[in-house]
Amino acid sequence: MSFQNPVFIPGPTNMPEDIRKACDMPTIDHRSPLFGQILHPARAGVQKVLKSDYAEIFIFPSTGTGGWETAITNTLSHGDKVLIARNGMFSHKWIDMCQRHKLEVEIVEVPWGQGIPADRYGDILAADTNHEIRAVLATHNETATGVKSDIAAIRAVMDACDHPALLLVDGVSSIGSMDFRFDEWKVDVAVTGSQKGFMLPAGLAIVGFSPKAMGATKTARLPRTFFDVHDMAKGYDNNAYPYTPAVGLMNGLKLACDKLLAEGLDNVFARHHRIASGVRAAVDAWGLDLCAVDASVYSDSVSAIVTPGGFNASDIVTLAAEKYGVAFGTGLGEVAGKVFRIGHLGSLTDVMALSGIATAEMCMVDLGLDITLGSGVAAAQEYYRGNAVKSLREAA
Amino acid sequence: MSFQNPVFIPGPTNMPEDIRKACDMPTIDHRSPLFGQILHPARAGVQKVLKSDYAEIFIFPSTGTGGWETAITNTLSHGDKVLIARNGMFSHKWIDMCQRHKLEVEIVEVPWGQGIPADRYGDILAADTNHEIRAVLATHNETATGVKSDIAAIRAVMDACDHPALLLVDGVSSIGSMDFRFDEWKVDVAVTGSQKGFMLPAGLAIVGFSPKAMGATKTARLPRTFFDVHDMAKGYDNNAYPYTPAVGLMNGLKLACDKLLAEGLDNVFARHHRIASGVRAAVDAWGLDLCAVDASVYSDSVSAIVTPGGFNASDIVTLAAEKYGVAFGTGLGEVAGKVFRIGHLGSLTDVMALSGIATAEMCMVDLGLDITLGSGVAAAQEYYRGNAVKSLREAA
Amino acid sequence: MSFQNPVFIPGPTNMPEDIRKACDMPTIDHRSPLFGQILHPARAGVQKVLKSDYAEIFIFPSTGTGGWETAITNTLSHGDKVLIARNGMFSHKWIDMCQRHKLEVEIVEVPWGQGIPADRYGDILAADTNHEIRAVLATHNETATGVKSDIAAIRAVMDACDHPALLLVDGVSSIGSMDFRFDEWKVDVAVTGSQKGFMLPAGLAIVGFSPKAMGATKTARLPRTFFDVHDMAKGYDNNAYPYTPAVGLMNGLKLACDKLLAEGLDNVFARHHRIASGVRAAVDAWGLDLCAVDASVYSDSVSAIVTPGGFNASDIVTLAAEKYGVAFGTGLGEVAGKVFRIGHLGSLTDVMALSGIATAEMCMVDLGLDITLGSGVAAAQEYYRGNAVKSLREAA
Amino acid sequence: MSFQNPVFIPGPTNMPEDIRKACDMPTIDHRSPLFGQILHPARAGVQKVLKSDYAEIFIFPSTGTGGWETAITNTLSHGDKVLIARNGMFSHKWIDMCQRHKLEVEIVEVPWGQGIPADRYGDILAADTNHEIRAVLATHNETATGVKSDIAAIRAVMDACDHPALLLVDGVSSIGSMDFRFDEWKVDVAVTGSQKGFMLPAGLAIVGFSPKAMGATKTARLPRTFFDVHDMAKGYDNNAYPYTPAVGLMNGLKLACDKLLAEGLDNVFARHHRIASGVRAAVDAWGLDLCAVDASVYSDSVSAIVTPGGFNASDIVTLAAEKYGVAFGTGLGEVAGKVFRIGHLGSLTDVMALSGIATAEMCMVDLGLDITLGSGVAAAQEYYRGNAVKSLREAA
Repeated sequence: MSFQNPVFIPGPTNMPEDIRKACDMPTIDHRSPLFGQILHPARAGVQKVLKSDYAEIFIFPSTGTGGWETAITNTLSHGDKVLIARNGMFSHKWIDMCQRHKLEVEIVEVPWGQGIPADRYGDILAADTNHEIRAVLATHNETATGVKSDIAAIRAVMDACDHPALLLVDGVSSIGSMDFRFDEWKVDVAVTGSQKGFMLPAGLAIVGFSPKAMGATKTARLPRTFFDVHDMAKGYDNNAYPYTPAVGLMNGLKLACDKLLAEGLDNVFARHHRIASGVRAAVDAWGLDLCAVDASVYSDSVSAIVTPGGFNASDIVTLAAEKYGVAFGTGLGEVAGKVFRIGHLGSLTDVMALSGIATAEMCMVDLGLDITLGSGVAAAQEYYRGNAVKSLREAA
Repeated sequence: MSFQNPVFIPGPTNMPEDIRKACDMPTIDHRSPLFGQILHPARAGVQKVLKSDYAEIFIFPSTGTGGWETAITNTLSHGDKVLIARNGMFSHKWIDMCQRHKLEVEIVEVPWGQGIPADRYGDILAADTNHEIRAVLATHNETATGVKSDIAAIRAVMDACDHPALLLVDGVSSIGSMDFRFDEWKVDVAVTGSQKGFMLPAGLAIVGFSPKAMGATKTARLPRTFFDVHDMAKGYDNNAYPYTPAVGLMNGLKLACDKLLAEGLDNVFARHHRIASGVRAAVDAWGLDLCAVDASVYSDSVSAIVTPGGFNASDIVTLAAEKYGVAFGTGLGEVAGKVFRIGHLGSLTDVMALSGIATAEMCMVDLGLDITLGSGVAAAQEYYRGNAVKSLREAA
Repeated sequence: MSFQNPVFIPGPTNMPEDIRKACDMPTIDHRSPLFGQILHPARAGVQKVLKSDYAEIFIFPSTGTGGWETAITNTLSHGDKVLIARNGMFSHKWIDMCQRHKLEVEIVEVPWGQGIPADRYGDILAADTNHEIRAVLATHNETATGVKSDIAAIRAVMDACDHPALLLVDGVSSIGSMDFRFDEWKVDVAVTGSQKGFMLPAGLAIVGFSPKAMGATKTARLPRTFFDVHDMAKGYDNNAYPYTPAVGLMNGLKLACDKLLAEGLDNVFARHHRIASGVRAAVDAWGLDLCAVDASVYSDSVSAIVTPGGFNASDIVTLAAEKYGVAFGTGLGEVAGKVFRIGHLGSLTDVMALSGIATAEMCMVDLGLDITLGSGVAAAQEYYRGNAVKSLREAA
Repeated sequence: MSFQNPVFIPGPTNMPEDIRKACDMPTIDHRSPLFGQILHPARAGVQKVLKSDYAEIFIFPSTGTGGWETAITNTLSHGDKVLIARNGMFSHKWIDMCQRHKLEVEIVEVPWGQGIPADRYGDILAADTNHEIRAVLATHNETATGVKSDIAAIRAVMDACDHPALLLVDGVSSIGSMDFRFDEWKVDVAVTGSQKGFMLPAGLAIVGFSPKAMGATKTARLPRTFFDVHDMAKGYDNNAYPYTPAVGLMNGLKLACDKLLAEGLDNVFARHHRIASGVRAAVDAWGLDLCAVDASVYSDSVSAIVTPGGFNASDIVTLAAEKYGVAFGTGLGEVAGKVFRIGHLGSLTDVMALSGIATAEMCMVDLGLDITLGSGVAAAQEYYRGNAVKSLREAA
């Protein structure tokens, strides 16, 4: 395999050298005090990345999907009602999980490309005067469509009708890349993984629970063992773990948080916005549209780019891999074949982004699309040239 | 942290240089064909390590505990009856998991230090003429007590009464270190993790399902998503995964299998037996007993050593860590304070084992036990000197 | 430090993942047979990369400069006369070394940007009827100017007058990247380092001696110990070394040779030519000239690009590093400030090259040069699109 | 290859995890300011390890042998007279180098196993009233015999007769492991390498020059280019290097110095003394003698152990490697076959040392020597138990 080119999938992301080295750790005794020196700083770091003073952080050897399961099995019981919008493949999958766990799922169907309609959530919640809805689920950033949703707005409609439901947020492809405010938005459970904004290999589910969510765990009856947060909490109190932890990944997570916080979260988000803006400038120069319907929902971690009708967008992904050794994301579910995706989160520079844009450009021309070579690159270059302040800092 | 000395915990084990490097892998696109080049050989390798021609292998970003959950949630339903012996901390924990998942658990209580009594399993199964018992659970190697059980004997009593229950076996601390015969013993689900005989970091649950177990998944009603083997199998058919795989660990697993198979499984088991025998010779020279009641149940992957009454065995573990930088295992559950454990599985040499024995010896003398310095070492040296053929091969 | 972007200096080059891992090796006993398993394959590999059946290969913990010193101190004596052209910084430095070692140096001054004039060498050698010239020195690829010279032509003029001088060739920035024919050109000493075509860190001087050069060592009187090839040869005969070898680098060298030979040397050279051609297409699109005077001397490992009069080309290098985190090469010596250099040797892809071109473009526009953003990129893209066959193979 | 056991050769030593990672560095531009951030701290660190306020530190991509060549070629001229004792293989080799470089070498022959006789140096220097002796050479620690010499005493006899000769000291196997006082002893050139006390791979010659030695470089006429300290100094003034530096190794050196200084040099030396004392206790328990004649010359970095007459000590080394996968050092030169060596410098713990002692013991018994298994181990255990304070700190 060639590991020369960066990847442009929306996770796992490119890994910085030092984070890889922090993960590649010799064996330690996870029942010794050494482990506490990794566990606690990692948890404290995640809490800060969530902009929270009180979220209780749990880290499982798993993935974001396991994080979803942690969120629902620890807070809900058979037959509980949950409200969730389906606006992409990942919200769709979370819905499926809820149904398998015998929750009653009220689904708000949303055209893929749009964000979660806070107003429709508001209507449903206001109508739920018996408070049968126990949890409101929201996918902060739909990785499949490159669409972010407004969690603050969802919180606002919940508050407007004083609805007591829990707010469970999938922040898998936003946390560490885009602004996420656990406390301000009164999120009850936030879910993410190691392989996105934290720039680590896949292998950790990372979740934050509010005190209210912790309270809900006492009555939640969905069966759980591996993902039980009480077992986890009990372990943490003894610098330990209910089973064998993925120590290296947690050591990497500790460093990842240190790096994000040293850069400054707002600088991190601005950096993602800058890189993303360059990509969007290129898309615009190509005369193509994003799947995301308007700028208010543009994701700064991934762009799903719509190709002309009749063209199979996945061919770009295949050709990029085979001819140029570059990985993009295909369209998933409803938008399969209609979009290809450029992931631009995690450890990425303007220069790396330009190489991805240049590759996409070559592929589209190779496949007969009416694109001018260099056009997208030039638009992105122009943007990056004028907005390069942060890259200096990043290079330090 | 000092990473100079080997660890002697019963997992995670010491990692060979090449396996660490295989795990420390740059990001690839897990939806590209590259992933299949890791996934399929890793699965095929595990199948061979299980000595199976037909086990369907599933690999989850999780741990052995997640493997247990995979085993039961994919094959059983609420209220199903299972038979299991409790003879140590890990069988105890699996029992607890079954109970949380609302299985009806028939527990055979066994003194810690003994193996699973196949005859009592036989009596219970023979009496279960209605075949209410849907699964027989067995911990092949009790990591807490250093006791192995006779799975072939359990299969024999099941066959003797033609009992159709599934046979689910926890091979976490045996597979890859001690003889395990999936097909011959007609195991239905075998469970292990990455951090023991496979010499990898923790982070993978590795399970094998028999065709009969796969059949049972169709009627099993316990809720599952993250650990669903059907989702996993569907992914595998497309060189893919239902969520983001831990690619580096799987790449390491592929290499670990290659290494074990190149050495020859029987040589691997003989090597573990040799190392373990040296440790046991030392224990004998010290005048101490193993927790394991007799040689028929001695584990070749971990030894739990009983210290004299009134002495806190955990002090040895603490002192070894603090004074000598060496990690042993403490006693767990019923044998807490009564035993300390020397893990001797995975990547270990005679010479490394001697350093562990020498350290234990120093600690015991430091703590006032009546032990002669060098006595255990000399006994182990004598054993290793006379049985060193395999170490030559290993060094190659 | 940010290690995200590739480097575009003409060495040390970007290192492939597997070569880095081969270099990062635990300590072995270099007096044990293990060392021979690294030493001999590494030497055999280098011999093949030199396209030689008989070159005796020596590997020193040093650099190309040490290789130059090895070449002259092992074959020459005080006052010996050598012929050499000065057409760039590296030939200039080799001249300086010869003078410090009290050789009599006949210098052919050549405008920087031109190759070595074989005809002038021919005239001088033909006039040297007493054969006072003991060695003809030639820099195959002038890294400072991006100019290759025609070694076969130099050999031809030597043969034309039956001149018995040794032919010592600096192949530091050509070997492993551009065609080099030790046997066919009857080279007597070839000199290179680890950090160019072999894609390793700096730290090895790698030299090949012909039988004729080995013969010359017997009468050569320049003092030498560290760089003595006889000590080295004597060590090699015993799988050993006259002092402590850089084992990890040699292990990396062994792998580097395996990789180059597996790809096929001619494919390696074609790949370098393709990458270089894309860069040259960009330079042409920018309306700029190379320092190299015409296509016959274009180097496939590095391009020195002339910027307009009055402009300080080094500003591009500084800005690229500070603003974009990308490393180019400055002009050296006579061409300082007049050129900047893009290294395109070693482990590089079309896509990586495009990111370098895009960066140079941004810097030139930032600094006020009349360059159209995207123009060079588009020219290179067009070239790479049409010549991409090899990149497929490379990605494998 | 098995990399499981530690090595017990007197260099290259076992490498700490973090130092290996510091060396395994991606390519940077060594002409950029980034390089200065490695170069200068590494040089400052070495200066402190030498306990010097004024030594000018030079770092070459080479080895200790290159350091010797640096020392003499930069300070001496053809025909200059030097005084040196031969008491082992490494002093012998330095003598050979001096002779090849046409120095006039006055050799004090000393039985191998003894230190340098300062009194005889004193007599010779006192008699050299014309000050024809330009340099006094001394091997601080004879790696071949495990013998340290008293540099302060040599300085004292030089001062006693006001002899102006330079004092050139080979500290290859002492610096970073045993007390070395550049300023206090008025050393003029100190020579070492990366692979001993600095715990790095081989590949760097590290030398310190006093102002007096720097002065001598102006008149020294031995030819030199690669090892020229003026070129090196000129480079350093510009954060640069006269050729391509071994950046990764220098980055490792920077960390190695940081670690040694953080531990405290005197603690480092005490740690080496403790480990060595345990080994010596074992030798005593075996009833064997060291090559070093008495405790005043015992080396804390390597022990050469004399085996009984008629026994080939090298068989121990061969058997240890083949049967147990452990590397010891053979006897060299005059003591070949008579001694085997246990290296105990660099990154080593009591526990690792015990594994080496246990292995030597097994080999000696295997080969029929009259040694009691466990006897040496027990003696070392007893010593380490009672002197373990520092290992606590080290493990931190």
